[in-house]
Amino acid sequence: MRELTPEPLTAEAFAPFGNVIEASDAAVKLDINQGHAVRYDRLAEVDVADGTGAISLFRARPLADLVLRVFERHPLGSQTFVPLSGSPYLVAVAPAGPFDPARIRLFRAEKHQGVHYEKGVWHHFLLVLDESDFLVVDRAGPGDNCEEIELAPSDMIRIHSRSN
Amino acid sequence: MRELTPEPLTAEAFAPFGNVIEASDAAVKLDINQGHAVRYDRLAEVDVADGTGAISLFRARPLADLVLRVFERHPLGSQTFVPLSGSPYLVAVAPAGPFDPARIRLFRAEKHQGVHYEKGVWHHFLLVLDESDFLVVDRAGPGDNCEEIELAPSDMIRIHSRSN
Repeated sequence: MRELTPEPLTAEAFAPFGNVIEASDAAVKLDINQGHAVRYDRLAEVDVADGTGAISLFRARPLADLVLRVFERHPLGSQTFVPLSGSPYLVAVAPAGPFDPARIRLFRAEKHQGVHYEKGVWHHFLLVLDESDFLVVDRAGPGDNCEEIELAPSDMIRIHSRSN
Repeated sequence: MRELTPEPLTAEAFAPFGNVIEASDAAVKLDINQGHAVRYDRLAEVDVADGTGAISLFRARPLADLVLRVFERHPLGSQTFVPLSGSPYLVAVAPAGPFDPARIRLFRAEKHQGVHYEKGVWHHFLLVLDESDFLVVDRAGPGDNCEEIELAPSDMIRIHSRSN
């Protein structure tokens, strides 16, 4: 068992895995709706091979012990998670390709930050600190779009509690 | 100028225009993430002709006077709006096809409810009551995907203030 402390979620740090969905000054900002809205445009693209983008809601509960034991990836589509409950949460990822537990990264997402995982990026399922709802945009369609991997006991990760 | 009072947003009332995005008991509920989440599955489908689904954020401001003067529709793609700021908002729509101001409907959406407009459904741009952020899923791609129509003065609608 290893320990990891969450690092802040920034667009730069998360770039190898996908996009951060947030109203960032770095985004393309468009003045729309006769001046009644600003559009932070195209923060991510829904990437669905041979399928449809689907809008779902997840109602997530915290892990009992904040130990990471399993990762998953979706070879056929990207996934977007945006928090609706106003709580920070954690994001654990590893690069696409052969799974390498040494390359796991752990981020702390603030309540106004969503994430978009590129197709094939390894990630832990939703790591909430309180029961929370998320809007999810992912792929619906034929074929097996979920691959799971269990970590060996020595690769399991305990999340460092001081940052929870 | 006419007056309209917002009606409650329900899946049944909104069905001619699209879907309500909410954690409803009527949804298909899937137990996922090793029992740590419920997935309210496929509440809407991203419908993009010859384009890509894009994830954006809108930061919206209220109208000065809550009078509806203009409607729009997107012939090439559906649009999803999900509130992120924890405030109720209003939704004004009219059926797809030739615009008929007599068939405008006005809904009050609660803070936990998003909406998915089907392709071609006429709608007013975001009608927030306070400055609010929304997650938006719509189409990016070539071609003209926005048609606007201005209401004649006699067709304009003042939103009845008792329900604001």
